[in-house]
Amino acid sequence: MKLISYVHNGKEAWGAVVDGKVIDLAGVAGLPTLADFVGSDLYAQRDDLAKRGKAVAALGDVTLLPVIPRPEKIVCAVRNYMDHHKEVLAAGMQRELSQEPPIFLRVWRSQCAHDAPIVCPNVSDSLDWEGELAVIIGKGGRNIAEDQAYEHVAGYSCYNDGSVREWQFHAKQIASGKNFESTGGFGPWLVTADEIQPGQKLKIETRLNGETVQSSDTSHMIFSIPKLINYASTIFTLVPGDVIATGTPAGVGWSRKPPRFMKPGDVCEVEIEGVGVLRNPIVAQS
Amino acid sequence: MKLISYVHNGKEAWGAVVDGKVIDLAGVAGLPTLADFVGSDLYAQRDDLAKRGKAVAALGDVTLLPVIPRPEKIVCAVRNYMDHHKEVLAAGMQRELSQEPPIFLRVWRSQCAHDAPIVCPNVSDSLDWEGELAVIIGKGGRNIAEDQAYEHVAGYSCYNDGSVREWQFHAKQIASGKNFESTGGFGPWLVTADEIQPGQKLKIETRLNGETVQSSDTSHMIFSIPKLINYASTIFTLVPGDVIATGTPAGVGWSRKPPRFMKPGDVCEVEIEGVGVLRNPIVAQS
Repeated sequence: MKLISYVHNGKEAWGAVVDGKVIDLAGVAGLPTLADFVGSDLYAQRDDLAKRGKAVAALGDVTLLPVIPRPEKIVCAVRNYMDHHKEVLAAGMQRELSQEPPIFLRVWRSQCAHDAPIVCPNVSDSLDWEGELAVIIGKGGRNIAEDQAYEHVAGYSCYNDGSVREWQFHAKQIASGKNFESTGGFGPWLVTADEIQPGQKLKIETRLNGETVQSSDTSHMIFSIPKLINYASTIFTLVPGDVIATGTPAGVGWSRKPPRFMKPGDVCEVEIEGVGVLRNPIVAQS
Repeated sequence: MKLISYVHNGKEAWGAVVDGKVIDLAGVAGLPTLADFVGSDLYAQRDDLAKRGKAVAALGDVTLLPVIPRPEKIVCAVRNYMDHHKEVLAAGMQRELSQEPPIFLRVWRSQCAHDAPIVCPNVSDSLDWEGELAVIIGKGGRNIAEDQAYEHVAGYSCYNDGSVREWQFHAKQIASGKNFESTGGFGPWLVTADEIQPGQKLKIETRLNGETVQSSDTSHMIFSIPKLINYASTIFTLVPGDVIATGTPAGVGWSRKPPRFMKPGDVCEVEIEGVGVLRNPIVAQS
């Protein structure tokens, strides 16, 4: 099943997409947000709920929001694909693989929905793409063991971990370049975990103006989804709706010679097998 | 004026501390949180409101919460005191001063209140103190100019940016070691901005079991409060209740020979001139 957060008639809502129609589930479930739903006991009854929900519009007639519009936490893996790690080394960066997953945090204000613009900041021309598989946490928890991690996964989505490279590097702290407002595409929907096998190899592709710039699959991940969940939940309690962006494969713009970045007028797409296509036009900051 | 977030009779509330008594302001102002208040027009009328508010308890009879219990963003400066920068170099770390402020993010779940325990995680013995001046944002904004930055400051508090050094370094990403649950002391209160002059030199001292381990003043800051506000707000919109932890002076535990860390049974205090004393017992993770 595909679940979305959206705005319809000026009101924030959430629901399912069935046969191209949006089924309102907020009313049927009596829960204000999709994050509340994925963490609730009702989540297991989503098929029944969708049958009882009312179709409110065609998918094209609602404005999508980021799948989880305001996650409490967005945990992002750095250099988590072996092919990307190799291109980073080839580009001259000194990095060793670590025994533990390198992570950073994004704030929810850095996100944008499918079809919403990714905003190219005024202060830099170095906005780069990073197509990623996003994991959305359902049942929360602390110190989640790897062999139980998939029980905490509500579903999957596409993420474009848009990165302002200059700011990522100018003070040697990654957070600034990874948090510019409306640079992180997240959508179009959450595909429920039952549609993807644990550890399933998924093709992942990023396209800039139709040209393939990243083409890999999730088997290149260095730290697995269970390891990322275990690691993050050792630090803090994961809660329903938390997002784990699992890292990007080879093909980012800054490691190219010469580097290549996104600019206003471009369109960037992230496609993940079994999940869908996230599409964002790039616009200049107003 | 001193403002607090607290729990009384099992209910979360916020108010002022006047003559050792807690004045409930949530009811008078009609606003659910202190973060809402510092961003509202009513904030300028806080003296009048405090006169109209009812004393609900003695300060010792309420349970304090972190000053802002759930800030949307907690932006932390790294190596922002020249004396600390020098001790880091002396400890053998290779670091150059950058032209822009290095920052990272904490999540609100990593915070704890005055008198609440700082929790020493099971997975490491390397929990270190970092006494810091915290700035609480009142009026929000994006691209805030340095010469207007102080207009966006609601007030100040003490912060103990508790750091699990091993996790901060083991994957070369600072976020993990800086975000363990209940490691960031924040309190005891917000001192309103009118009580501190913009750029005023404030003594800052950290004590472990009564022994002074950090003793410096805010004139050693490398990037000023206005620069930190300008930098952060270039990345994203600052909103009422956002916190900027402005960095720690010399005297942290890991740069000592041998390193010294906090352990269960210790008590750590951060005292800032004109602000107050933040005190936290250290306990083992259960």
